[in-house]
Amino acid sequence: MSEELENIQFELTEDLINRVEGLIEKNDDKALQNLLKDFHYADIAEILDEISLEEAIYVIKLLDSETTSDVLMEIDEDNREKVLKNLSAKEIAEEVEELDTDDAADIILELPEERQQEVISKIEDEEHKAEITELITYDEDTAGGLMAKELVKVYETWTVAGCLRRIRGQAKEVTRVHSIYVVDKQEKLIGRLSLKDLIVAKSDQKIADIYISNVDFVGVDDDVEDVAKVMAKYDLEAIPVVDENQILLGRITIDDIVDVLKEEAEKDYQLAAGITGDVEADDSILELTRARLPWLFLGLVGGVGAFLIMEGFQDSFKEKAILFFFTPLIAAMAGNVGVQSSAIIVQGLANDDVRGSVNGRLIKEMLLAALNGIILAIFLFLFVWFYKGELDKAIAISVSLVMVIIVAGLIGTFVPLFLNKRGVDPAIATGPFITTSNDILGILLYFWIAELIIAFFG
Amino acid sequence: MSEELENIQFELTEDLINRVEGLIEKNDDKALQNLLKDFHYADIAEILDEISLEEAIYVIKLLDSETTSDVLMEIDEDNREKVLKNLSAKEIAEEVEELDTDDAADIILELPEERQQEVISKIEDEEHKAEITELITYDEDTAGGLMAKELVKVYETWTVAGCLRRIRGQAKEVTRVHSIYVVDKQEKLIGRLSLKDLIVAKSDQKIADIYISNVDFVGVDDDVEDVAKVMAKYDLEAIPVVDENQILLGRITIDDIVDVLKEEAEKDYQLAAGITGDVEADDSILELTRARLPWLFLGLVGGVGAFLIMEGFQDSFKEKAILFFFTPLIAAMAGNVGVQSSAIIVQGLANDDVRGSVNGRLIKEMLLAALNGIILAIFLFLFVWFYKGELDKAIAISVSLVMVIIVAGLIGTFVPLFLNKRGVDPAIATGPFITTSNDILGILLYFWIAELIIAFFG
Repeated sequence: MSEELENIQFELTEDLINRVEGLIEKNDDKALQNLLKDFHYADIAEILDEISLEEAIYVIKLLDSETTSDVLMEIDEDNREKVLKNLSAKEIAEEVEELDTDDAADIILELPEERQQEVISKIEDEEHKAEITELITYDEDTAGGLMAKELVKVYETWTVAGCLRRIRGQAKEVTRVHSIYVVDKQEKLIGRLSLKDLIVAKSDQKIADIYISNVDFVGVDDDVEDVAKVMAKYDLEAIPVVDENQILLGRITIDDIVDVLKEEAEKDYQLAAGITGDVEADDSILELTRARLPWLFLGLVGGVGAFLIMEGFQDSFKEKAILFFFTPLIAAMAGNVGVQSSAIIVQGLANDDVRGSVNGRLIKEMLLAALNGIILAIFLFLFVWFYKGELDKAIAISVSLVMVIIVAGLIGTFVPLFLNKRGVDPAIATGPFITTSNDILGILLYFWIAELIIAFFG
Repeated sequence: MSEELENIQFELTEDLINRVEGLIEKNDDKALQNLLKDFHYADIAEILDEISLEEAIYVIKLLDSETTSDVLMEIDEDNREKVLKNLSAKEIAEEVEELDTDDAADIILELPEERQQEVISKIEDEEHKAEITELITYDEDTAGGLMAKELVKVYETWTVAGCLRRIRGQAKEVTRVHSIYVVDKQEKLIGRLSLKDLIVAKSDQKIADIYISNVDFVGVDDDVEDVAKVMAKYDLEAIPVVDENQILLGRITIDDIVDVLKEEAEKDYQLAAGITGDVEADDSILELTRARLPWLFLGLVGGVGAFLIMEGFQDSFKEKAILFFFTPLIAAMAGNVGVQSSAIIVQGLANDDVRGSVNGRLIKEMLLAALNGIILAIFLFLFVWFYKGELDKAIAISVSLVMVIIVAGLIGTFVPLFLNKRGVDPAIATGPFITTSNDILGILLYFWIAELIIAFFG
């Protein structure tokens, strides 16, 4: 027995891929089926992501459609698109037939619009067809776009015994029974039950007497990020979805939320790094360029701005070239402080941790930036003074560093709060956007202040 | 009924907090209990995070210990520490008594070491005490540190009827029954069953005949991040934890994994923004300074380095001050490209997407950076040429920009791959670390190349 258990610890090795490719080349279908039959569909998907499109299609046509439909859901989106292009509408419909309604709707929505109706029309199960047709109408960023129609539903008028009997029927379609949802005659959600509650109850009890009326739910138009927050906060593993009349429409399970959270985190991380659009290390150079170049262009424009500022101050500092040599330092500090303060606000907003007044936030950041700025400025002052022996320049540079850091911190705090108020995703405020604007503003401020101080000593 | 449903959509308002504070001030315990009794413990925790420590302790002592133990788990870690300081060992033991073993162990581990044994010794339930004592021995970053001892376990020799009877007993302790784990006489994990399978089976069948031997599991010493990956990949809602002899020790549920994923994402995001240590917007200025200042100091050292480089090139470019005015641009581009390329590699490594040779990655990044660099350099060349009319400088600046971008991209790709090979978290490679080193190297490279090209034009 224990040997059988070891089996499932899957590892994607060069050797395994070579074996699969060898069997495909030899057209040894039997050996291939035999090799793959013990693998989880998520593991088969990993193999398919590593072999060529022709080989992947060969494997997909070889396996039974229950396995391949699950495999299809797991392979990389780009690869799935290519595979689907190579399958007929009838073949896709057969795969879709095997999937839960939420996955089925996702596959259909990935098809070009003209193929969507063709595939749907070829789905044989009328109920499945109707449910998918409903699901594809919802926005993918809403609860409706994430939910599945599969759920276990009982009416308040049923008895426990009748319930168990009918659940045996419904549950066959539902991979995992999290909660049993209780509805009234109008299909309105009125409560929930767990299988455990049903098993513990007496068989002649009415559902109306044992159900729990305190049930969390979300509206079909709610934003998926809000759904994720509710489920994470209340540790829910499934949540029912209702329409504006409380009619039970579907349910969302935690595994979909895990995917939402991961995607969300990756998107924010990429935005902070100056990458837009969901790209991966394995995407083509052109796709990566499209994701990266716009932000670099912003940086270029910022750099040209910095150039013009420095050129403008050229005459004021003819004999003080040293001041120009500190511009990279000033720009770097302004950028770093801005990113730090905006990242904390962006994260706080995402976690609903940022409450209280904007002014309070700004005052706190000002104190924090001033503290950090003064500590850093002391080091810089000592360096310039000892190394160059010019007190006026040492003062000018370190005082302006403090001012630049304070302003950068305030901008980093204010911009995401402002964007959030305006309904714009504050995550765009981190990364190159804040760095570039802080760079330019920092350099401008630096020269202004340095000019004033040196004139004063002059 | 539907009115009752609306209730649960909780919103934390200023008004609500004022009401709670008012009732505490008036010592109106009855009204306070009445107000809070319908709230979910996660909502009560949100309220407590907004009021003073004395007020929070007042509420905690007022509510029944089943509610307060759950509330305690949900409040902010800093606040929990303060609350626990104000409770006696006996009072903490009472709270711990009500918690699942995993949460109980977490609470105990947050106490100062000298109090841990004192609290444990005051736990009355001997089984709970033994389980917690076991759990606190595991490293918090391993499966053992995350698992709970609560699970539903059946022996292969039992019948379905006997099973259901005993499950009714075990299930009372287990909040949610995900899977029923099947063990042999030696307590070795040999398979699983779902409640659904049990309900569908005939009551005189043996477990040995109906269980599913294909069960995912993790080792007690496995890293939590690996556990999260397995559960996300296979869409699991719970996974059993075994020791090296396959003995079933506990189980991990998906809600704990959701927390791990969120923390991991937040840590990486903060690292990329130059913030270390798990800080929040509401932490004190001193805590935030400790998290931010070290990275700023790194930036300062980098800036001084840039200063020294520029000073060194001062004589070579006496009549070409314009070259110095482009250093912020060069530094910004080097930093941006470095962060972009490292972020993609760090994310790919986290998702196990980065396979194949390091050389292949470097060649791809070189091509990508060259493409982006050439496009950007053309704009820069045109700007300098038209604006200044100096062809030699326009060529010098734009050619070095391309070279700087390529080198920055290569460093951004190489460093995280190198750190990962060495077993260091590659996430530290994004953010200020890569920005600062790329800044300096970029500026150095820029002056070298510019010097060569301008010498060539004579």
